[in-house]
Amino acid sequence: MIKAHGYAAANPTAPLAPFTFERRDPGPHDIQMEILYCGVCHSDLHQIHDDWGGSIYPMVPGHEIIGRVVAVGTHVKTFKVGDIAGVGCMVDSCQHCDPCQHGLEQYCEEGATWTYNGRERDTGAPTHGGYSDVLVVKESFAVKVPPSLDLKAAAPLLCAGITTYSPLKHWQVGPGMTVGVVGLGGLGHMGVKFAHAMGARVVMITTSAAKGADATKIGADEVLVSTDPEAMARYKGKLDFILNTVPVGHDANPYMSLLKLDGTMVVVGLLTGLEPPLNGASLIFGRKSIAGSGIGGIAETQEMFDFCAEHGITCEVEVIPIQSINQAYERLVRNDVRYRFVIDMASLKAG
Amino acid sequence: MIKAHGYAAANPTAPLAPFTFERRDPGPHDIQMEILYCGVCHSDLHQIHDDWGGSIYPMVPGHEIIGRVVAVGTHVKTFKVGDIAGVGCMVDSCQHCDPCQHGLEQYCEEGATWTYNGRERDTGAPTHGGYSDVLVVKESFAVKVPPSLDLKAAAPLLCAGITTYSPLKHWQVGPGMTVGVVGLGGLGHMGVKFAHAMGARVVMITTSAAKGADATKIGADEVLVSTDPEAMARYKGKLDFILNTVPVGHDANPYMSLLKLDGTMVVVGLLTGLEPPLNGASLIFGRKSIAGSGIGGIAETQEMFDFCAEHGITCEVEVIPIQSINQAYERLVRNDVRYRFVIDMASLKAG
Repeated sequence: MIKAHGYAAANPTAPLAPFTFERRDPGPHDIQMEILYCGVCHSDLHQIHDDWGGSIYPMVPGHEIIGRVVAVGTHVKTFKVGDIAGVGCMVDSCQHCDPCQHGLEQYCEEGATWTYNGRERDTGAPTHGGYSDVLVVKESFAVKVPPSLDLKAAAPLLCAGITTYSPLKHWQVGPGMTVGVVGLGGLGHMGVKFAHAMGARVVMITTSAAKGADATKIGADEVLVSTDPEAMARYKGKLDFILNTVPVGHDANPYMSLLKLDGTMVVVGLLTGLEPPLNGASLIFGRKSIAGSGIGGIAETQEMFDFCAEHGITCEVEVIPIQSINQAYERLVRNDVRYRFVIDMASLKAG
Repeated sequence: MIKAHGYAAANPTAPLAPFTFERRDPGPHDIQMEILYCGVCHSDLHQIHDDWGGSIYPMVPGHEIIGRVVAVGTHVKTFKVGDIAGVGCMVDSCQHCDPCQHGLEQYCEEGATWTYNGRERDTGAPTHGGYSDVLVVKESFAVKVPPSLDLKAAAPLLCAGITTYSPLKHWQVGPGMTVGVVGLGGLGHMGVKFAHAMGARVVMITTSAAKGADATKIGADEVLVSTDPEAMARYKGKLDFILNTVPVGHDANPYMSLLKLDGTMVVVGLLTGLEPPLNGASLIFGRKSIAGSGIGGIAETQEMFDFCAEHGITCEVEVIPIQSINQAYERLVRNDVRYRFVIDMASLKAG
């Protein structure tokens, strides 16, 4: 076994604190990574707090992981020592169901194995995430990170990036389309960058004119302040597609009215109820759809990294030492981050 | 002007009563029909009661109209005197917007002109529906009814029929697919017939085992009783598409769980809120969609009639005289009809 150091939550209310645990030795298909950076996702906080139920403690969060390969198993083909690898939300899946066979491991019919707060398929041992110094992972669940990318700014691509890239690709966003992005946080700011890079006209939809101004700096062509009824009326029926990154219940009906005939709004950040309720009329008049999308498959995550290298895309991040994680969570709850915290894991050595 | 006789609601609470009014003389592009049959749609009741606001009184309801052409305007090309014509929910639209140009008049950007409880585009005069003896309508908003169809049983095709045919066609239901139909009323029973005729395996989803048994007589291959948790669990992830005809707020989350990856549920009967609320998780896990669809365009309505003639499809109806309309409404509210009332308009002459 490999001794690992990280930060863990001991229970739903405890602050994160230093924690020592063990990783498996790399098997023939595994790579071992020295973790360099790990992004801080809002879902880390939900899982620490057991908001979704079933949380496993102690919990080492983190699923936006970038590291350097330090060892490879005998059968590993795609990585060699010294490569930079990325690991996102999943570390395993059944590999034989229909979604897995189609590269959609995130929709594995048996349930994917999550990078943390999950259990290894063979041993049942709890999985631990990227707020730590070392990770052992199946080669097939790691992606190659192009060396041209700024590594600390690339870490959040593993969740915030792929979660927005995947639906934009699936619903074929491209030139000639006008795309709305609702919410300018970790997910939303990546949605703006990707939709822009894919050639769409991007409308940032936000409650805050100031945030809207920020969005124009990263690729938004227009800003629609959703609290302005006249502006909302002006955009009625103007959008081909909406990427909705709002992570809490909200009234989606006004956004549906912005869509053209046959338009689709995709939610990527909301697991709980759409309240106030969605009206059937919001769907029926204009044959509109509301859909959901969760992260992306491993092959698509690799495709996204290559797209990012080609277009020079990374995330806007604020790098923190691991010792500041609890304060970072407080700021996250207040939306006081533009737009993603990333932990520099070298700080772990400071104790 | 043409003198017309029908039944009208004088206000939101009055029973329907005999009413005499005027229709315009047929213009060059109009046909004049002697109304033979008119279906009774639940939305007639909603509009009489002003449930959706803005109702115009007196109101002659009815938008499932079959009649014999008795006069044609000088420029009419597709109809001649003696033809059987059908008129559904719309009698006009702007004709120049993008949806109209694509044969989707029901999604006209200026709003279609509804067959009753609407206003004529040029004069602003209230429109009156099919609970009457005569109709004058633009040739381009009438369809030709194949003579092989039983006319009284064909009347509800104009709303209940096209409302279910259109989404099944749009989402490409066909052989190899398993399709759920939720609710066995006027809409649902036509959804079962159409999905079956299109070659899909049809699962009737109902709260009532007895209704389920009925559904198997009209084309359902299987019955899923939605109040049986074990049965619902067995069907988890088994359906490619769901046609949801429930006209009132309900918990759609259990139905979403029945869909496969990338599956879609389409609501056709619900204008109000989806309560209890739809969960984002119901969409995100499996990249599922919920969409809406409203009636169908005129060309598609003609296509449906031709499909019905080819496959021998009509509605299950109970024919009533117009004098029984108020009792029929009482039964409609109790769901005591299998599956559509149709008024025999010859009864009007009885006074």
